[in-house]
Amino acid sequence: MAMMPRLTAVLDRLDRHLPQTLETLKDFLRFPSIGTDPAHHADCRATAEWMKRHLEALGFTAALHDTTGQPVVLGELVQPGLPAAAPHVLFYGHYDVQPVDPLALWTHPPFAPTLVKGEDGRERLYARGAADDKGQLMTFLAAVAAWRAEGGILPFRLTVLIEGDEEGDSHHLERFVAAHAKTLKPDICFICDTGLWDDDTPLICTSLRGCIADEVTITGPRIDLHSGYYGGPAANPLHALSAALAALHDKNGRVTIPGFYDGIAKLTPRRRKELQALRFNTRKYLGDVGLKIPAGERGYTALEQIWLRPTAEVNGMTGGYTGEGSKTVLPSKASAKLTFRLVAGQNPALIRKNFRAFIKAQLPRDCTVTFDNQTHDNHAVLLSSDSPWIAAAARALKDEWGRKPVIGGEGGSIPVAGAFARHLKADSLLMGFSRASDAVHSPDEKYDVDCFHRGARSWARLIAALAEGVSS
Amino acid sequence: MAMMPRLTAVLDRLDRHLPQTLETLKDFLRFPSIGTDPAHHADCRATAEWMKRHLEALGFTAALHDTTGQPVVLGELVQPGLPAAAPHVLFYGHYDVQPVDPLALWTHPPFAPTLVKGEDGRERLYARGAADDKGQLMTFLAAVAAWRAEGGILPFRLTVLIEGDEEGDSHHLERFVAAHAKTLKPDICFICDTGLWDDDTPLICTSLRGCIADEVTITGPRIDLHSGYYGGPAANPLHALSAALAALHDKNGRVTIPGFYDGIAKLTPRRRKELQALRFNTRKYLGDVGLKIPAGERGYTALEQIWLRPTAEVNGMTGGYTGEGSKTVLPSKASAKLTFRLVAGQNPALIRKNFRAFIKAQLPRDCTVTFDNQTHDNHAVLLSSDSPWIAAAARALKDEWGRKPVIGGEGGSIPVAGAFARHLKADSLLMGFSRASDAVHSPDEKYDVDCFHRGARSWARLIAALAEGVSS
Repeated sequence: MAMMPRLTAVLDRLDRHLPQTLETLKDFLRFPSIGTDPAHHADCRATAEWMKRHLEALGFTAALHDTTGQPVVLGELVQPGLPAAAPHVLFYGHYDVQPVDPLALWTHPPFAPTLVKGEDGRERLYARGAADDKGQLMTFLAAVAAWRAEGGILPFRLTVLIEGDEEGDSHHLERFVAAHAKTLKPDICFICDTGLWDDDTPLICTSLRGCIADEVTITGPRIDLHSGYYGGPAANPLHALSAALAALHDKNGRVTIPGFYDGIAKLTPRRRKELQALRFNTRKYLGDVGLKIPAGERGYTALEQIWLRPTAEVNGMTGGYTGEGSKTVLPSKASAKLTFRLVAGQNPALIRKNFRAFIKAQLPRDCTVTFDNQTHDNHAVLLSSDSPWIAAAARALKDEWGRKPVIGGEGGSIPVAGAFARHLKADSLLMGFSRASDAVHSPDEKYDVDCFHRGARSWARLIAALAEGVSS
Repeated sequence: MAMMPRLTAVLDRLDRHLPQTLETLKDFLRFPSIGTDPAHHADCRATAEWMKRHLEALGFTAALHDTTGQPVVLGELVQPGLPAAAPHVLFYGHYDVQPVDPLALWTHPPFAPTLVKGEDGRERLYARGAADDKGQLMTFLAAVAAWRAEGGILPFRLTVLIEGDEEGDSHHLERFVAAHAKTLKPDICFICDTGLWDDDTPLICTSLRGCIADEVTITGPRIDLHSGYYGGPAANPLHALSAALAALHDKNGRVTIPGFYDGIAKLTPRRRKELQALRFNTRKYLGDVGLKIPAGERGYTALEQIWLRPTAEVNGMTGGYTGEGSKTVLPSKASAKLTFRLVAGQNPALIRKNFRAFIKAQLPRDCTVTFDNQTHDNHAVLLSSDSPWIAAAARALKDEWGRKPVIGGEGGSIPVAGAFARHLKADSLLMGFSRASDAVHSPDEKYDVDCFHRGARSWARLIAALAEGVSS
């Protein structure tokens, strides 16, 4: 088998080189790569170019691939000594980041990465994308770099795929994966875009919620009206929209769209017990964001809701006059953006269809409605938890963090895991090192330096565990 | 009595000088005097300065008066020959205009007044404020100018008050009126800010709805959240706001705020018959703005609703992500702007209080709410329809338009009429010449040139009727 360095040497190197590794990450974070905003598409390409050069410097052959969205960076690690029988790993990450508004709420500029030592002595790196996903994906590349710098050859063939549409329309990547299915063809995918279980306990993720997005625009009168001349007799689309959205949930927090819960497996008493054993701290989870009282579907714990139950959430709403002062207008249009988090068993296309029919049924006869969805339907994913890859990862994580990882779920959607399963017939190993306090998608996103560092060390341990497994 | 020119000579002069009078109006319309927008406060002052110079050119002594809002222009016509016993008329208008957004929907730039001859041969002046209220107030000043140019002295002492906060916080003017009550002290107020009954029938307005404005901001989590990590267990302020606003009306279109209808006199069968006799064309009224089906309070005709029934209207709403593309955010805040049109008998302060309590009662326990109102409470006004001023105006309007004016109401609010009644103990004569098609408060606001011209001629006839009445 390929040359295997001593693990302790690799870990020492990661420790020693942490400052330089952080500087490289900061370079990566300076790109305002907001994939969903056309104004930042050139920035996305520049980010991809940077990643290509970075991979080349690590010993990859790398190239940018145009897609229907932002470019994908694909790199293949050059390892001449690798046996042909070595398994093929596809590592996945994304260089695009969420929009930054409201910008006024950021303490540090989102694209000027800033290291801050807190009163607890812990260093944090503040920037949009610090955790999601630039910082996380760099933990893996740092481990690969250290392994190779100590003279090692990885115990697997490695392809790295870094995309730029994770926060937007995942259909772009899905099309790319489908088109490249034959050449990609991995034995396993590694995805580093998830969080820790708690501040000090790692998590391997085996269930992911899917997600569909939709946008509703309701039109009443053909022009904005004076609320004095028309207030009363004229249908107000803001009223119609409010009423339709209010009707989406019943008083028990259940979604009222017909057929919404069809196909979902009943939560077994055993799984409920397992989840209960995790002693998820709902009070802290809500308290961290200024809340106290669990909302959502009655009859399910917060953890059950996030991992295993679907939702309908309004993400944005606008209509009429929203500027300074007041304006006595009765607007022509009102609109809302929504996302639905879906779980295994639900049919995304059917849910979209039923949602649209539901909204139409709520409207006063004098209002019309149009729908617009920028995001492709993403199926939810349930992974097999008895995979040997997961066993190796569990061992590596336990060695690094001193605790057995939780085998759990993830409320957010990682559509690519669904795409890998569908088009590459490959399972995914999802492990990541983000903390709940990272303010992912919010102002002042950050990544704790110890998470970044221990993340890299965890990947190094996994590489070592896999090398041992192969050589033993 | 003061010298009285022949009415025909005054009307001829108005006809001959129409082009110059329109040029002067266009100068007035070029000022972007959006009173509610701090970015336009300097423009408001410049507009007031222009009006001061205009009044001086017409023979007034005029001055700007600072207020808690935009400056008021106060002018006193210098008429040395006027008997001391002559009545005192206070003419009121406003130079401020509504905001112009959505700007993209304007065919002509809002502050580059454009005369367009339609296919019907009718000329229209397009500009923000063309009708509301710059064009309308200039009908009166044009009549005064023509009367004096023909050597006449007005049969009354004339004070002109032109303000800049009509579209915003009327409290500014109310304070000014209260502070100047002793010096103003008119026998009657003339207000030119209302519309025609239909395209060819004038209207004298004897009932006005009041108006209060409020703004609701609901806060859920203290920061924006990822809808995957928190969707479900975390309270979403957009859901809370939608539900609270949806609850404002019952299925019969009645406002559900406790006590909302208290104090309103029952509509008498006689008044209903009078209104019915007006044959208000609800179909055309709604059809003009792309609607078909009367909304609002069941059991009341559209005309009854506009003139005599109160409303609660959402004027604007915003929260979460409203930019390009989608963002899977669960927002921290959501807000809505509302106005309530009130009728005689309702108590604005109590309604605001009850509205706020109502919203609080609708909220999930984990949401907080703040309120902000930029507009002072405006009482509704009911005027006595047997005033001799109204009789003279009715005669003048009939002579100009060839039809008896409708004695009616007005759905919009003219808070100053309430302030004049309260602080000056003076009734108001409300006549105006705006058409329903004028797109007041909307993109492409316009004023028909024939309305402007016949409006000026109507005022000249009223001056003549009053002069006759005094001299006979």
